[in-house]
Amino acid sequence: MADKIFRVNMTDLSTTIETVPAEWAGHGGRGLTSTIVAAEVPPTCHPLGPNNKLVVAPGLLSGTPAANSGRLSCGAKSPLTGTIKESNSGGTSAQLLAKCGCKALIIEGQPKSGTWYNLAVTPDGVTINEEKEVIGKGNFDAIEILSERLGASQGIITIGPAGEMKMRAANLSVKDPDGHLRSCGRGGLGAVMGSKGVKFISIDPKDGKVEIADMDKFRAANKAFAKALVDHPVSQALGTYGTNVLVNIINESGGLPTRNFTQGQFEGHEQISGETMHDLIQEREGKVKHNCHKGCVIQCSQIYNDAKNEYKTSGFEYESIWALGADCAIDNLDHIAEADHLLDDLGIDSIETAVAIGVAMEAGVIQFGDGEGLLRLLTDEVGKGTGLGRIIGGGAGDVGRAYGVTRVPVVKNQAIPAYDPRAIKGIGITYATSTQGADHTMGYTIATNVLGVGGTLDPLSKEGQVELSRNLQIATAAIDSTGMCLFIAFAALDDATCLPALIDLINARFGIALTGDDVTNLGKSILKTEHAFNLAAGFTNEDDRLPEFFSLEPVAPHNVVWDFTGAEIDTFWAF
Amino acid sequence: MADKIFRVNMTDLSTTIETVPAEWAGHGGRGLTSTIVAAEVPPTCHPLGPNNKLVVAPGLLSGTPAANSGRLSCGAKSPLTGTIKESNSGGTSAQLLAKCGCKALIIEGQPKSGTWYNLAVTPDGVTINEEKEVIGKGNFDAIEILSERLGASQGIITIGPAGEMKMRAANLSVKDPDGHLRSCGRGGLGAVMGSKGVKFISIDPKDGKVEIADMDKFRAANKAFAKALVDHPVSQALGTYGTNVLVNIINESGGLPTRNFTQGQFEGHEQISGETMHDLIQEREGKVKHNCHKGCVIQCSQIYNDAKNEYKTSGFEYESIWALGADCAIDNLDHIAEADHLLDDLGIDSIETAVAIGVAMEAGVIQFGDGEGLLRLLTDEVGKGTGLGRIIGGGAGDVGRAYGVTRVPVVKNQAIPAYDPRAIKGIGITYATSTQGADHTMGYTIATNVLGVGGTLDPLSKEGQVELSRNLQIATAAIDSTGMCLFIAFAALDDATCLPALIDLINARFGIALTGDDVTNLGKSILKTEHAFNLAAGFTNEDDRLPEFFSLEPVAPHNVVWDFTGAEIDTFWAF
Repeated sequence: MADKIFRVNMTDLSTTIETVPAEWAGHGGRGLTSTIVAAEVPPTCHPLGPNNKLVVAPGLLSGTPAANSGRLSCGAKSPLTGTIKESNSGGTSAQLLAKCGCKALIIEGQPKSGTWYNLAVTPDGVTINEEKEVIGKGNFDAIEILSERLGASQGIITIGPAGEMKMRAANLSVKDPDGHLRSCGRGGLGAVMGSKGVKFISIDPKDGKVEIADMDKFRAANKAFAKALVDHPVSQALGTYGTNVLVNIINESGGLPTRNFTQGQFEGHEQISGETMHDLIQEREGKVKHNCHKGCVIQCSQIYNDAKNEYKTSGFEYESIWALGADCAIDNLDHIAEADHLLDDLGIDSIETAVAIGVAMEAGVIQFGDGEGLLRLLTDEVGKGTGLGRIIGGGAGDVGRAYGVTRVPVVKNQAIPAYDPRAIKGIGITYATSTQGADHTMGYTIATNVLGVGGTLDPLSKEGQVELSRNLQIATAAIDSTGMCLFIAFAALDDATCLPALIDLINARFGIALTGDDVTNLGKSILKTEHAFNLAAGFTNEDDRLPEFFSLEPVAPHNVVWDFTGAEIDTFWAF
Repeated sequence: MADKIFRVNMTDLSTTIETVPAEWAGHGGRGLTSTIVAAEVPPTCHPLGPNNKLVVAPGLLSGTPAANSGRLSCGAKSPLTGTIKESNSGGTSAQLLAKCGCKALIIEGQPKSGTWYNLAVTPDGVTINEEKEVIGKGNFDAIEILSERLGASQGIITIGPAGEMKMRAANLSVKDPDGHLRSCGRGGLGAVMGSKGVKFISIDPKDGKVEIADMDKFRAANKAFAKALVDHPVSQALGTYGTNVLVNIINESGGLPTRNFTQGQFEGHEQISGETMHDLIQEREGKVKHNCHKGCVIQCSQIYNDAKNEYKTSGFEYESIWALGADCAIDNLDHIAEADHLLDDLGIDSIETAVAIGVAMEAGVIQFGDGEGLLRLLTDEVGKGTGLGRIIGGGAGDVGRAYGVTRVPVVKNQAIPAYDPRAIKGIGITYATSTQGADHTMGYTIATNVLGVGGTLDPLSKEGQVELSRNLQIATAAIDSTGMCLFIAFAALDDATCLPALIDLINARFGIALTGDDVTNLGKSILKTEHAFNLAAGFTNEDDRLPEFFSLEPVAPHNVVWDFTGAEIDTFWAF
C-alpha cells in the first residue's frame, strides 16, 4: 500500500485520505512538514488562527527496522517565533504512523465551539471524536488513562494543560515505549494543536507494515549503519552519561551560560553533571541506559528516580538540566528533576520555560538559586495559568517584555539554549541564522567547536564558523527528513562507512538510487524552502541577529563578546 | 540667544549644551525628534537599553504667542512597537522649554546603579539630581509634591508607576496649567524614560523668552490664524462637547469598535456620548471648555467632576472613552472617568491599556461590561505590577499572546484606536502604513471619510483612501513639527486663510521665507526619515498590514471586511 496524506479539517470536522502529490514524494519528516507548511499555510497568518496547519510526519525510514529511525517531525507556523517550525521527538508515534501508511497527517481549520476532540489514526484513516475525559489533565495522568482506554501499544501525541491554555512554549508530548513522554519541545506547537481543539492523537496501526523494496540490501546497510553508531566514542558517552555528559565539558569550555547568561561557568557544575547523575541513578536503582524508541542503539535516555527510588523523569537532557540548573543557578539535581517532571506533565518546553524563569530571576520575581521557588512557579503559576504563569508560559521573550529586562537570550523570540555564543561562536551562527529561532539542534557546531567531532575549530575565533554552521544545518535538515535521531551525526561526521550506509537504507526502502549529493541538495532545498517562508512572513536579515547584550557584555572566563557583523552573518545564505 | 541642544548622559551623569547642527536647524517638534533619533539611535538597539535615546523637543512655534502652539514632542525607539516613535502632548512644558532656549533635550545612556534621578532644565542647561521623594508615587501625588517643592509655575514631564516598572504602554505625563495632566500617550515612552533612571524633568525658564524676528508680521498672522481656527464648525463642536462629540457620530457611521472589535455599533453609545457628558459636566459644576496650554482657542478639554461635584478627570478624550466604553462594553461614564483618572495616575496610555483589557475580556479574564472589574484590574493588577498587571501594562498585543487570543487589534504591536478600519477604510490605511504603529493622529482620515472636512470620501469604498491617508500623513508630520495642536488641521483643510497664516507665523518667528511647498516637503522628508529608520530596524511591507481577523470577520452593521491587498497598501510609499 502506497503511503497517503491523511487530512483533517477541524472547521467542518471532515477527514480525507489523499494521494501524495509528486512534489512531496521524496520528502519525509522535516522536509515534508516544511514543504507542506510552505505550500499550504499563508506566511502572514495568525499562528493560532484557522489558517495555520499542524503537520505530523514520520521520517523516510520510520517504521522500518533501521537503527535510530524513530523520530517524529511536527511542523506549523510557530506561535512563539512567527517562523516556520519543525520540532521532532522520539517515542513510538513515528513508527506507528508509518505503519498506518500515513506519510503525513495535516490538521487544518479550527472549530468555533470550544469543544475538545481527539483524533484516532488507523490504516483506514482518521476519525474525529469529542473528548472530555482527559481535558485539563496533566500528561502523566492522561497517558495512563488513555493507555487503559486504548491499550498500551497505541501511539499517543498529546498536549498538556499548557497546550490547552495555548501557551506559546507549549509542546507536543509523544508517548515512549514505557508509557513515559518525549517532546517535540520547541516553538509552541502544543499551542497550535490546542488552537485546533485537538487534545490528543492516538495511533493504532493494527496489522499495518512498512514495505521495504530490497530487504537484503536493507539488512546489510542497517548492520553497517548500526555498527558505525555504536562504535563512535560520543555514542558510548551518551549511552553512559546521557546528553548530560556535557555539563562538565561545556563548563570547562567557558560556554555554560550561568545566571541568565551573565557568566560562562557555573560553580555548581559538579552537582548537576552527567557523572554525578550517573552515580545517583545507579544508587537509586534507576536506569543509566534507556531507549526512547524501538531500534535505538545509542540509548542516551535514562530513568532518573527520586530519593525513594521511585520514577521521577526520563529523557533528562543536558539542555534542560543546564536551563533549570546553571542558568537559574540551581545546583540541586532533585529540584531540577522535579521541575523536568512538572514541565513534562504540563506539556511545556523545558528549555524555553527554564530560560524564561532565568529572566524572571533577573527581574527579581524569585532569586537565582531558589529551586523551591522555581517549582512553585511551575505548579502555582504556570500550571494554574495565572498572569505570571502565562508570562512564563509565553517564553523568555515575554518575560523580558513584561519586566523590562534587556538581557533576554532569544533569537526570533525563541530562547537560546545551553551554549554561550560568545564563547562558542559557531553555535551563535546557528542561533542567528536558523530558520526556526535559536536552536542548537539545527546545526550543532558544538561537535567541531568543542567535541572534536568532524575535525576541530577554535570556538573563540570567527574563522570558519559560518561555513561550519552552514554545512551542519544542511546536513541536519536532511537527517531530520529521514526519521533518524540527530545523534547519528557524530558517527556520520567521523566514520566514512556511516553516511553511505544511511543512503543505502533509504535506497533499499524505496528502491531508488539517491547519491550523497542528492542528500546534500535535499538539505539545501529544505533550508531554502523554510527561509523563503520566513521572508514572506516579513522576516529580514535583521532578524538573523543575536540580542544586543551579547555584543555589549563580555562573558567570563574568556571575557569575550559576540563580534560578528551583520554582513558576516548574512554570508550564511550564500549557497 | 540662539536655541541649543541640551544633552544629558545618564551613564556618566554628565550634561552638555551644544550648538544646533545645521541639518537640524529647520526642524522642531516631531521633525526634530525623528531626525535626532534617526541620526543617533542604532535602529536595532534594545529600546530599554543604553543605546536608545529619549528626545524631547518643543515645536517651531512653541513659546511664542501663536494660537494653539503648545504641543511638546517626545521621541525614541519605541519599546512597544520597535519602530521610531513620536508622541506629543499639550501642557506647559513645550512653551517653557522653548523659553529655556532648549531646541531639544536628548537623554542618553543608562545608569548602572538603579538609582533614580530628576533633571532640572533652566536656560543655563540641565542639572541631574538624585530623586527619592516621589519615587513610587502616583502622578497626581507627585505633581502636588513637586508643585510645592518647585513652585506651581515650573513645567513637569514625569513618569508614573507604570514607567518606573518599564511597562511598554507607560506614557509621559505633562503638567497642564491647572496642575493636572496631559500625556504623550502612545508607544511606551514612559518606559524609555524609566529605563534611563529619570523620574521627572522640571523646567524653569526663569526670565527666558522666545525671540520673534518680525513681531508685526507675527501678530497679523496670528490674528488671521486664530480667526480661522475659531470660525471652523469642528472647532466649535470640540469646544462644546470635547472630542467625545465623536461617540454618536462614529456609532452612526458603523465604525465604533465594540466588544473588542466584534461589532461596529455600541448599544450604550448614548450613555457615554459627548452630549451626555456635556450635560453631566454642567450639572456637576465642572467645566465644558478648558485649555491644556496657554493660547489654545479651541479648548476641547473639560473638567469632569464626579457625583460629589469633585474633580475626577480632564482631557477626557473620545478615544479613551471609546476604549474604556464601547470596546469594553461599559456604558457607565463614571466608571470610565474613574478609569481615566487611574490611568493618568499610573502614567499609562489609556488607549493601549483599555484595548488590552478588551482583549482580556475576550479571553475571559473579566466579563465585557464589568466596569468595577476594569477598575480592579487597574488598581490591583496594573498598579501593583502583578503578573496579570504586567501583561495588561504591556499592551493589547501582550494580552493576546498571553491568552492565545487571535482577535487582537494592533498594528506593529500598537493598539488600534477608536475607528473600525473595515467600516472607515481610510483610517485603516493610516493604521497600516504609519511609521509609528496604529495611530489615528498620524493621518486622521475621519475628517474626510466621516466629518466632511477637506471634502468627502465614501468610507466604505477603497477608492482614494491611500491618497487621502498619504496627504494627511504628510501634512500631519509637518504640523507636528510646528508645536501646533493637530486640531488646526480642520481649519487648514477647509479655510484658505489658515495655512498661509501658519506659514507666515513660522516665517515671522525665524525671519525666513518658507512656502507651502517647503512645508509639504518637510512633511514628506519626516515620513521618509522615519520609514528608513524602521526599515533599518528590520520592518518590511509585511508589517504594514492589519491583523488577519479584519479580513476574515465581517463587522456589523455594514458587514464589511478589510479588503485592501498588500500591493494596494504599499502604493502608499510611492512619493
